[in-house]
Amino acid sequence: MTHEQYDLVIIGAGPGGSRAALDAAAAGMRTALVEKADAGGTCLNWGCIPTKFLLGGTAAVPLLQIQKKYKAAGGDVHLSLAALHQRKDRFIKGTRQNLVKQLTQAGVNFITGAASFAGPRTVVVEKEDGSSLLEFENLILAAGSEPASFPGLIPDGNCVLHSSHILQLETPPQSLIIVGGGAIGLEMGDLFARFGTQITIVEALPHLVPAEDGDIADALTKALKREGWTVHTGRRVRSLVTDEEGALLTFEDGTAIRADKALMAAGRSPATAALHPEKAGIMTDGRGWISTDNFLQAAENIYAVGDVNGRTLLAHAAEHQARYVVSRLRGLTAAEYPAPVMPSCVYGHMEVMRTGATAKELTAQGISVSVSRAPLASNAIAQSCGATQGFVKAVWAAGNGTPELRGIAATGHGVSHLVGLATVMVQQRWRRENIHDIIYAHPTLDEALEAALSAPLENA
Amino acid sequence: MTHEQYDLVIIGAGPGGSRAALDAAAAGMRTALVEKADAGGTCLNWGCIPTKFLLGGTAAVPLLQIQKKYKAAGGDVHLSLAALHQRKDRFIKGTRQNLVKQLTQAGVNFITGAASFAGPRTVVVEKEDGSSLLEFENLILAAGSEPASFPGLIPDGNCVLHSSHILQLETPPQSLIIVGGGAIGLEMGDLFARFGTQITIVEALPHLVPAEDGDIADALTKALKREGWTVHTGRRVRSLVTDEEGALLTFEDGTAIRADKALMAAGRSPATAALHPEKAGIMTDGRGWISTDNFLQAAENIYAVGDVNGRTLLAHAAEHQARYVVSRLRGLTAAEYPAPVMPSCVYGHMEVMRTGATAKELTAQGISVSVSRAPLASNAIAQSCGATQGFVKAVWAAGNGTPELRGIAATGHGVSHLVGLATVMVQQRWRRENIHDIIYAHPTLDEALEAALSAPLENA
Repeated sequence: MTHEQYDLVIIGAGPGGSRAALDAAAAGMRTALVEKADAGGTCLNWGCIPTKFLLGGTAAVPLLQIQKKYKAAGGDVHLSLAALHQRKDRFIKGTRQNLVKQLTQAGVNFITGAASFAGPRTVVVEKEDGSSLLEFENLILAAGSEPASFPGLIPDGNCVLHSSHILQLETPPQSLIIVGGGAIGLEMGDLFARFGTQITIVEALPHLVPAEDGDIADALTKALKREGWTVHTGRRVRSLVTDEEGALLTFEDGTAIRADKALMAAGRSPATAALHPEKAGIMTDGRGWISTDNFLQAAENIYAVGDVNGRTLLAHAAEHQARYVVSRLRGLTAAEYPAPVMPSCVYGHMEVMRTGATAKELTAQGISVSVSRAPLASNAIAQSCGATQGFVKAVWAAGNGTPELRGIAATGHGVSHLVGLATVMVQQRWRRENIHDIIYAHPTLDEALEAALSAPLENA
Repeated sequence: MTHEQYDLVIIGAGPGGSRAALDAAAAGMRTALVEKADAGGTCLNWGCIPTKFLLGGTAAVPLLQIQKKYKAAGGDVHLSLAALHQRKDRFIKGTRQNLVKQLTQAGVNFITGAASFAGPRTVVVEKEDGSSLLEFENLILAAGSEPASFPGLIPDGNCVLHSSHILQLETPPQSLIIVGGGAIGLEMGDLFARFGTQITIVEALPHLVPAEDGDIADALTKALKREGWTVHTGRRVRSLVTDEEGALLTFEDGTAIRADKALMAAGRSPATAALHPEKAGIMTDGRGWISTDNFLQAAENIYAVGDVNGRTLLAHAAEHQARYVVSRLRGLTAAEYPAPVMPSCVYGHMEVMRTGATAKELTAQGISVSVSRAPLASNAIAQSCGATQGFVKAVWAAGNGTPELRGIAATGHGVSHLVGLATVMVQQRWRRENIHDIIYAHPTLDEALEAALSAPLENA
C-alpha cells in the first residue's frame, strides 16, 4: 500500500467535488480527487446532461404536434433513440475526458478508486492496481447520491428500471409506468411520450412536483393529462415487479396496473455506506445523509458538499457549496454558509421553474404572504408557438414598506428560460416599484414575468 | 366639424401611444387616442408579432434538420403558410380587439381617423363619418414609422415586396432576395428558409446586423452561409424591379441577380409627412424624424415617443418613453429622460441579442474597453439540441476599481432568452466580483453568460 499526503482530499468527482478540486489546486493546495466511477458524477453521466440531450434532440416533436393540430404542419417524423444515444454518449465521453484533463492540468491528482475512511485523517483508496493510503489536512466529502430503492420495488434492469437503466434503452417501450412525480419522472415521461409511449405516472404525495405549490402542480397535471398521460397522485405503491407480461405495479389498495416497462424515480439515497464515515467521526442521519453544521462541516477538518449532505440535490447547489468550502479553507470567509436563493428547473415541453421560496414555505415560517400571477396565454412568445398553458407566479412577503419578492415559480413551455432573471430579482428582493428598473425586450417570455410581478396582489 | 377638448391627445396607437393612453387615463386625464389604421401599430399588426408567430409556428423545422444530420430523426414535414397566417391573423385580431376594449374601459376616447396639426394646440382628425377638431392641453406624438423607400427600389407588391406585403404571401417563393441585413431581413430570411426558399441577402454596409460588433456579425454570417444562404455585404444596390421573370436586382457595379421575389427591408422612415408637424412648431430633421429635447419634448406641450423621434426603433423603447412622458405630465418626475440600458433581439433559429453598449460604441466615446467571451459550444443546453454555433460576449469599461459591465451581445440559437438576465447585469453595471452573487441553474443557457463574464479579459 502506497502512502500519500495531501492538503486536501476530495471524495467524489461530480459537480461539487470537481469544482472544489479546481479551486483548491488553483489556490496552490496539494489536492487529490478520488472517484470510484466516472468523472462528472451523476449529473454528467446518468442525470441532468443525458436527459437534456435526449430532450434537446427531440424538442421539435411536441412543437410539431401543436402545429399539426392547427393544420399548419403535416407529415411524419420518426426518431432514432439509438442515434440520440450515440450523440449523447459521444458528448458525455468528451466532456468527461476534458474534465479529467482540466483537473490534471490544474495539478489535481485524479485517482480512480473506491475510497473509505480508515480514521479521522486517513482514507484508503482501492484501485485497480492496488491500494493507497491518503493522509489529509482537510477532506471534502462529495460522494453524491444514487437512486433510492424500496422493498418490493427493486429495479431489476429487466422491466423495472432505475434512471440509469432507462437512459440506456435502445427501443422505446409501448407503455411506461413511472413511480415518482419529481423532475426525473417528469422528464423521462416527456421524453418517451415523444416516441409515442403511453405514460402513466404515480406519485404517493398529493400532487406531482411535491415540493411546489399546488397550483403549479395542478396546471402541470392538467397539461399532461391533455397530452394523454394517466396521472395517479396520493396513491402508495405496494409492489412493482417484472412478470412474464412486463411490469406489474400493485397499489396499496390492491388494484394493479401494468406496462411494458416501469421506471423507479422516487427519491435518492446518499452514496455513503461504503465510505465508513463513522471511522472519521462523521455523523449521519438514519438514511445515511451526512450531518453538517452551518459551515458545511461534518467533523474536524471534514466538510460535506452536494447531494451527500442532503440539503439540496442539485448540481449547481453542490458547486456553490464547494466554492464556499474552498474559500473557507483558504481563509477567505469565516461566515456561515449563506442560504442562497436556489433556482431549480424541470425540463421538457411543459417545464417547471422555481427560484426562492414557495408560498407554503413562507406561510409555514409565519410570514404574511401575497402572490401575483400572469397566464402564459397573455404572452406573445408563448402564443407564437401555440404553447400557452401554464403561468408565472410571484410570491411576496410583507415586510418593512411594500411587499418584497421572495420567490418566483412557473410552469409552461420554455419557463426554464426565466430562471436566471427570476433568480436575480428574488436574490435582490425586488419590490413592486423595482419592476420597471429594467426594460423588458418585446416580445419575450420575460414579459410574462413582468406581467406576473405587476399583477394585482392576491392572498396566498 | 365637431369640437372636442382633452387634457391629452395621443397620435398613434402602437406600443408607445397605447401605453401613454392607458397610463394617462388611469391618472384621470381626459385622453383621446387617434389611430389612422389598426390599434397596436406596426408591432402588433405588421412587425414583431406576426413575424414571431410565423417563426414560432415553424420553430420545429430547423431543430429537426439538425437531428436529421445526426440520423436521429427522419421523415418529412410539410408546412402550410396559409394555415400559419390564419392562426396569426386570428391572434392579432383578438389582441387588437382586446386592446381597444382595454383602452375604452380605461376611459380613453379611441378615435379611428387621420390626424394632422391645425395649430399649436389643435389637431384635426378626418374620420369615416366626418372630421373633428381636438383641442389639447398636451399632446404625445407616437405616429411610428413605415418601411423606407429608395429611388429605383420601390416595392410594387408584385415581385418587389416590403415587409407588410411579404407577411401576406400565401405561397413561399422558390428564391428570395432580401435587401437589408437588419432584424426584419434576417427574420424573414430565416422564416422562408424553413420552407425551402433559397435566400440571398444584400447589405450595403460592411456586415450584416450593422449596429452590432463585427465578430457577432461574422459568426452569424458564417452560420447562415452554412445553412445555404448567399450573403452580399458592402454592396450597394442600384435598382430592384419586377420584370417578366420575377425580381431583378442590379448592384451599383452593374452585376445583377434575380429571384422569384425580393423583399425591401432596408430601413424605416417616420410616418410624419401627413401630420404637418410644422403647423404646431415641431421641428423635424431632413428625413422627417421629429426632433426632441432631453425631455422628449418636440414643442411647447408636445412630446414625441417611439419610432417617430428616431431614437430607438423598438416597441419596448416606445413604451418606456411613453411611461416617462406621462409620469412627467403628472408631475412625478422632473428629470431628463434617462438613457436606459436597451435590449434588442433578432429572432429565429440563429438569433442575435444585445443589451447596453457595443465595444465600438464605447471605444468611440474614448472609454477604455475590454471584452470577455464564451462559445456556445461549451454549453450543455446548446449542445443538447445540436445548435452550438455562436458565442456570448461581455463588454467591460475600465472605471474606478475593477472593470464594469457595459454591454452583453450574443449570437446563436436561443440567445434571445438571455436578454432579461443580461439587461439586469448591465443596468446594474456588474463587476467581475458580482458574477457569483447569484446561482446559475445547471444546465441552462444562462451558464454561457456566466462563462462569458468569467472568461479572461481581452483587448476589444
